[in-house]
Amino acid sequence: MTRYQELADDIEASIAAGVLRAGDKLPSVRHTSERRGVSASTVFQAYYLLEARGLVRARERSGYFVAARPHSAPPEPTQLSAPPGERFAVVDVSERVFEVLESSMDRDVVPLGSAFPSPRLFPLQRLGQALARAARQADPRSALDDLTPGSMALRRQIARRYLADGLALSPSDLVITNGALEALNLCLAAVTRPGGAVVIESPCFYGALQALERMGLSAIEVPTHPGEGMDLAALETAVQRHRPQAIWLMTSFQNPLGSLMPEARKKALVELATRHQLPLIEDDVYGELYFGEHRPPPAKAFDTEGWVLHCASFSKCLAPGWRVGWTAPGRFTRAVARQKLTTTLATNAPSQQALADYLESGGVDRHLRRLRQSLALQRDHMASAIARHFPQGTRATRPEGGYFMWIELPPYCDALALHRAALARGISVAPGPIFSASQALGHCLRLNYGHDWSDETGQALATLGELARAMQSLPAAKAAG
Amino acid sequence: MTRYQELADDIEASIAAGVLRAGDKLPSVRHTSERRGVSASTVFQAYYLLEARGLVRARERSGYFVAARPHSAPPEPTQLSAPPGERFAVVDVSERVFEVLESSMDRDVVPLGSAFPSPRLFPLQRLGQALARAARQADPRSALDDLTPGSMALRRQIARRYLADGLALSPSDLVITNGALEALNLCLAAVTRPGGAVVIESPCFYGALQALERMGLSAIEVPTHPGEGMDLAALETAVQRHRPQAIWLMTSFQNPLGSLMPEARKKALVELATRHQLPLIEDDVYGELYFGEHRPPPAKAFDTEGWVLHCASFSKCLAPGWRVGWTAPGRFTRAVARQKLTTTLATNAPSQQALADYLESGGVDRHLRRLRQSLALQRDHMASAIARHFPQGTRATRPEGGYFMWIELPPYCDALALHRAALARGISVAPGPIFSASQALGHCLRLNYGHDWSDETGQALATLGELARAMQSLPAAKAAG
Repeated sequence: MTRYQELADDIEASIAAGVLRAGDKLPSVRHTSERRGVSASTVFQAYYLLEARGLVRARERSGYFVAARPHSAPPEPTQLSAPPGERFAVVDVSERVFEVLESSMDRDVVPLGSAFPSPRLFPLQRLGQALARAARQADPRSALDDLTPGSMALRRQIARRYLADGLALSPSDLVITNGALEALNLCLAAVTRPGGAVVIESPCFYGALQALERMGLSAIEVPTHPGEGMDLAALETAVQRHRPQAIWLMTSFQNPLGSLMPEARKKALVELATRHQLPLIEDDVYGELYFGEHRPPPAKAFDTEGWVLHCASFSKCLAPGWRVGWTAPGRFTRAVARQKLTTTLATNAPSQQALADYLESGGVDRHLRRLRQSLALQRDHMASAIARHFPQGTRATRPEGGYFMWIELPPYCDALALHRAALARGISVAPGPIFSASQALGHCLRLNYGHDWSDETGQALATLGELARAMQSLPAAKAAG
Repeated sequence: MTRYQELADDIEASIAAGVLRAGDKLPSVRHTSERRGVSASTVFQAYYLLEARGLVRARERSGYFVAARPHSAPPEPTQLSAPPGERFAVVDVSERVFEVLESSMDRDVVPLGSAFPSPRLFPLQRLGQALARAARQADPRSALDDLTPGSMALRRQIARRYLADGLALSPSDLVITNGALEALNLCLAAVTRPGGAVVIESPCFYGALQALERMGLSAIEVPTHPGEGMDLAALETAVQRHRPQAIWLMTSFQNPLGSLMPEARKKALVELATRHQLPLIEDDVYGELYFGEHRPPPAKAFDTEGWVLHCASFSKCLAPGWRVGWTAPGRFTRAVARQKLTTTLATNAPSQQALADYLESGGVDRHLRRLRQSLALQRDHMASAIARHFPQGTRATRPEGGYFMWIELPPYCDALALHRAALARGISVAPGPIFSASQALGHCLRLNYGHDWSDETGQALATLGELARAMQSLPAAKAAG
């Protein structure tokens, strides 16, 4: 452990013990440097780290202050959420998913069910400048040069960022796509044939369910731990029993659980896929939104034989609405590029150039630090509000990244009924059944803490808690759901 | 016929008769106005029309001059190019298509095989300004508002343009897509199931072949006339015999033939589709590139019951590389929007806003007039060069729009061998077999006249003619192909 981490941990302990309380000013950098016998830069690093953990906040020209902490947090869920290795022919999940998506697009609704973070958290002005520059300087021939696999300048910048995080990828390993959703769908199309089966998580991102449904694939749901991700023993059993054509999962800050698969488990996952020569489609769109010190390595970092089709995008961490993502599909790179050429041909050229330019100019890391800090604070606010307002027996995950929290309500609660009741009060939530092929998880919710915390958010969570508690005395609600 | 059309026709006749010759100055507007007893504005309209037809050119502050005309043009093909109604399981056309596409992307190659027009023909600077403005003014929430079906402002502008051309569409009839290629693929996915069959043209756009191949659909090739489009009697037979799930075709300036289906035939086509309750996927990406007086109405204009899924884009007429297209899928609008939501979610938001802004500000019609005039002139130059350089027996279509010319070489020519020989000389061409599921059309070529005419282009066509003529004395060439 480095000196600054040690110092940060000491201060965190003081906060946890109540020695330092919300609003207290931290000692000045010079003071701490003298007292602890460390350099000023070590103290700065420690304070930055505490800031990243959401424990302290800088106020301009005044120094660092202890941030408001949640009074409490609900207990975390501990159980797996589905029986292992069942196979489901995917049917008709789409209608429900669309209903939820559409309800959270209304500007007047508190968007706790939304899949997107607040657009206000992004450097729209600097991106706009980059886009304006790209538009002015566009080489007429770039429309051809930036055809799939995409802009070389952008692929170089993406590869450079991976390299800084310890993952060696070259520009030729990458295909630029219209967001990660296209990347995932192209990868799935490249490695499956209709009638086959695909392993997914339970609960899982509903986009996976919709993709399987559209492509005529069946789903093998493998239980996924709220804290540590997919159960690998259950996965091994499912692979042997059902001979799937692919695995599709999220290894970091999973949607909807928020779970982070530990590194050793990611490594074992890739070994399993490699042993079975099974394409592993990794959705890593939240990987940059970590609250810890380092970017958690994706499964791709352990891929020695090219079985991992890694997918990510700028939509969640930098440029929402631009629809620029990418994939590093390993041994399937050529097949995926051709899927792309025959379905959407290419990705918007000016946006590719603007992103390459923005990344090259620096500044993205400062933006990401701020974004992570905002999300970590908003997570704490949400945990606190849930502990305060939700019924006895509620559990909630405590994600170390991303912006989704998974809530297990008491069994008497019906998430679909709650979704409808909440919508009538101007609040959207994402009910558990949209994250499962078996449409189980009827007492669970996914809540989005990716929006600026406000009194309105607190009030919305109080209302949700009230609606949920009321279900205890209304046993008919579940039947009606 | 209006007065200005009459006047334009008279002048065109004088040019055809050699009374007026290339380089001659037209009489001044005032002179003509007095001589013919018409208003000055009528004369101006006539001169504009002659300009649009590529017959005269304006020189700043000097007046109008007769444009250089082709010395001659090759005869047009008259025969249908395939036997009627055969059904092919599509196999492995992709490899050849990719080879051709990739060869024409090299900047050092004369791109006669390219699928794209010259990017220099587009108003990149004004578009760049619009994009810069959109980027600066972006509402953070537009990322959500512009989700599929897409920006309301852009859909309104597109609907407005259709209305001006006599096609009543409302914004809610439209779904914005990543170019027309995505629109076509979404429509095809929405109306077919793997294992089914789809009617396509022979020859047809290879993107259709690739889509059928990817989706596990078989192709029913219906012969298409070089001048007038798909043979409707053969279509009727094919529909009755094979019960296809859809028809996919281009009704205006077809790729690769350049053919324009007459209005009455378009109407009969829609009636046929409606009678059989058969989805009709109409690719109209070249519709704006007409050389005549009016935009030819798409088949969609005759659609009374919503069976036409009309697809188009800005890629060929305004903003190449931006990947913004759209579809008006009639009764399948909801299904297509959902296909889009689950595959690529949305289309680049800043580009949608910029295009809406550019269209609203006016100026697009002036750009399009210039673009059409350039293309018409380049068509004439190409026809002339082919007549001069290509072997006896060569036929070529004379498209009234778009930028593709279809060449039928004498039977001893092998287009695939010619493609390879030309590439070795730094020239790309698109050989006939990539436009057919049966890989017939081995003596045909598609040539692109969408690039500024230059000595290099003329020289490339002379080289092509030389290579083709040489094949007469090399009977082995065909066997080697």
